[in-house]
Amino acid sequence: MAQSILSHQFENGLVLVGEPMESVESAAFNILVPAGAAYDPAQRSGLATVTCELALRGCGPRDSRQFITDLENLGLQRGEAVSSAHVSLGGATLAKNLPPALGIYADLVRRPHLPADELDAVRLVALQELRAIEDDPSHKVMLELKRRYYPEPWGRPSEGEEEALGAISIEAVSGHFQRLFRPNGTIIGVAGRIDWPRLKELVGELLADWKPMAVEEPPGERRGVKIDHLSHDSSQTQIGIAYPSVPYRHPDYFRASGAVGVLSGGMSSRLFTEVREKRGLCYTVFASHHTQRSRACVLCYAGTSAERAQETLDVTLAELNRLARGIMPDELSRLKARVKSGLIMQGESSAARSAAIARDWYHLGYPRTLAELGQLVDGLTVEGINEYLEENPPRDFTVVTLGPAPLRVQAA
Amino acid sequence: MAQSILSHQFENGLVLVGEPMESVESAAFNILVPAGAAYDPAQRSGLATVTCELALRGCGPRDSRQFITDLENLGLQRGEAVSSAHVSLGGATLAKNLPPALGIYADLVRRPHLPADELDAVRLVALQELRAIEDDPSHKVMLELKRRYYPEPWGRPSEGEEEALGAISIEAVSGHFQRLFRPNGTIIGVAGRIDWPRLKELVGELLADWKPMAVEEPPGERRGVKIDHLSHDSSQTQIGIAYPSVPYRHPDYFRASGAVGVLSGGMSSRLFTEVREKRGLCYTVFASHHTQRSRACVLCYAGTSAERAQETLDVTLAELNRLARGIMPDELSRLKARVKSGLIMQGESSAARSAAIARDWYHLGYPRTLAELGQLVDGLTVEGINEYLEENPPRDFTVVTLGPAPLRVQAA
Repeated sequence: MAQSILSHQFENGLVLVGEPMESVESAAFNILVPAGAAYDPAQRSGLATVTCELALRGCGPRDSRQFITDLENLGLQRGEAVSSAHVSLGGATLAKNLPPALGIYADLVRRPHLPADELDAVRLVALQELRAIEDDPSHKVMLELKRRYYPEPWGRPSEGEEEALGAISIEAVSGHFQRLFRPNGTIIGVAGRIDWPRLKELVGELLADWKPMAVEEPPGERRGVKIDHLSHDSSQTQIGIAYPSVPYRHPDYFRASGAVGVLSGGMSSRLFTEVREKRGLCYTVFASHHTQRSRACVLCYAGTSAERAQETLDVTLAELNRLARGIMPDELSRLKARVKSGLIMQGESSAARSAAIARDWYHLGYPRTLAELGQLVDGLTVEGINEYLEENPPRDFTVVTLGPAPLRVQAA
Repeated sequence: MAQSILSHQFENGLVLVGEPMESVESAAFNILVPAGAAYDPAQRSGLATVTCELALRGCGPRDSRQFITDLENLGLQRGEAVSSAHVSLGGATLAKNLPPALGIYADLVRRPHLPADELDAVRLVALQELRAIEDDPSHKVMLELKRRYYPEPWGRPSEGEEEALGAISIEAVSGHFQRLFRPNGTIIGVAGRIDWPRLKELVGELLADWKPMAVEEPPGERRGVKIDHLSHDSSQTQIGIAYPSVPYRHPDYFRASGAVGVLSGGMSSRLFTEVREKRGLCYTVFASHHTQRSRACVLCYAGTSAERAQETLDVTLAELNRLARGIMPDELSRLKARVKSGLIMQGESSAARSAAIARDWYHLGYPRTLAELGQLVDGLTVEGINEYLEENPPRDFTVVTLGPAPLRVQAA
């Protein structure tokens, strides 16, 4: 299928990336604002999340209720997320409703009301979310793993800390907004039934006069302990393992993530086969490549009963170590079939493509077409991946466990 | 967009429903086999799940490994689920890979190996999943709510029971398969880039000589207690509420589910606004319509801290009772915009459409086009919904809580 992706950088640094999709009736957008959790002040972890939530409570001429009403009348299916780098604001709807939806989101990123009288309700919701994680140990162990693996503040969970959330004032929220919400570094991905010249003009009208500001990206500093156990009264043990990898923009990325795809991702993948299918050690086991712009890792998870946890950890680490000895041709051909089928599906979803092209721009400075992605996957060879693995064997493991008793970590 | 849906019932009772989608490259299928958890023998709860898992470990000429390898080489993105009524087997891939994938699935439903030497691993995985639910209280409370709301065996969780799982023998699995896997009652939905005449011919070759068998649908018998508390050592309390509604095939269904859409579903919905946005009582609160073929309910969930749980329950029940007093025109117009936008998105996904047309056939005996669904939504009026609510106010609540202490249930 022919596919073109267009992009435009406005003078204030704002980037618009658009992918016209003629086969759909919908249009979707994804706005990445460089104001994620890594920008939270050290004693105010959770500020990005609270700022994002409060920004959703009225902007421009609309109060909180009108904001929601207007979006719902446009049939917008929306979602927000705070990662370490970004506040991301996404939406999908009928193509004809895209322009008014973008108009509302322009108000959101430039003229939110940040109402003081709603701060307490927003804070309570954030505290509830934080406490709910305590009741969700599989979520918690991975969050604590990232916190220890990545150098501060890049592993900081966007959910924040209880004490920090309690101390957030309305002045802190509005200061955070004024310091960080800016056009330079902001990327808007749009995909679906769009008219590029008109879209570019509209976004220009809405956002070209937004003033840029210099903001320093937080450096990555000291990292956490490598082996840790969190005591939790349960019959289950959660296991999280991380080891270093290369980020998306690195030339070795596809070789590195291809190796992870052999380890996990399909039903014939090694972790699934060895840990779940053969031994029945656990219900869920996976490894996935996790990338930031300048650093990355492979994250592995297994959740099992406390009595089988040591064996599960040992088998999982043995599989990670075995990966260094290389992959087989049949593993690569299955991986390619899987990834290419996934690309076809992605190409049929305006929401998936709007997010992908915005993310590409953040990591690479340009968007990749599905054809280019397909070629990169096609270009993978067993020799190439094995060479990468020989030079970069899984090692230097960070291991966090959560459960009734610590485990012995033998291979770290 | 023009849309036609074709269907064919083979002499053995098997139904094929197909929706050609010219705008996609993919094709997806969803096979509903009438062998869900409600058919489990009383002392073998979990047998449907174990049978499904073991059927995935080799069929026809393929052993377990070959089965997975063949599917992965076709780039099939697959998923299985066991509901009370069905074992459902779904997959999506490039359109050209659909015929060989269906060939493999025909072996799966007719000629699975059900290997005795893999039963223990399958059982262990099922036990791990069961134990993982104990660590996932929001999942657990809704599962226990459905168990109490629906008459036995229709509320039985597909995950089964620990003792029952332990007692399942290979003879029980193969007997279960032979008793239940049959063409009559099985529905195959296929959507995407398909050629209907060739698809019908292929499915006929694969499955037309499959022998039908008479199986009685389990009756719904006694139901569980209406107010229950499950003690759980946590700082959080999980709240589940169910009340009666009409199933999908009932003429009042769209009025009933429209009312639930005003209660929950969008950011301006009543539960979200009153429980979360105004009072910050919890992070997640929702209500959703849940339908079986002959019975249905509205399920509500709220998870919050133990100290705010009583207030959360009281406010939620008050909103359910207030719904009986009717909805407003602006609420209905937002709901319509939301639902119709959702239909557009559904129309762009072959996987979503293949599941929807199979489900329609199960409930109605025919598939609904998106245009027909759109008209049904357009036809909703404030008066119609309010009339329904006056005659069928939310009442007769089943309430299950999970947490450190029971709550007072005032409105049930």
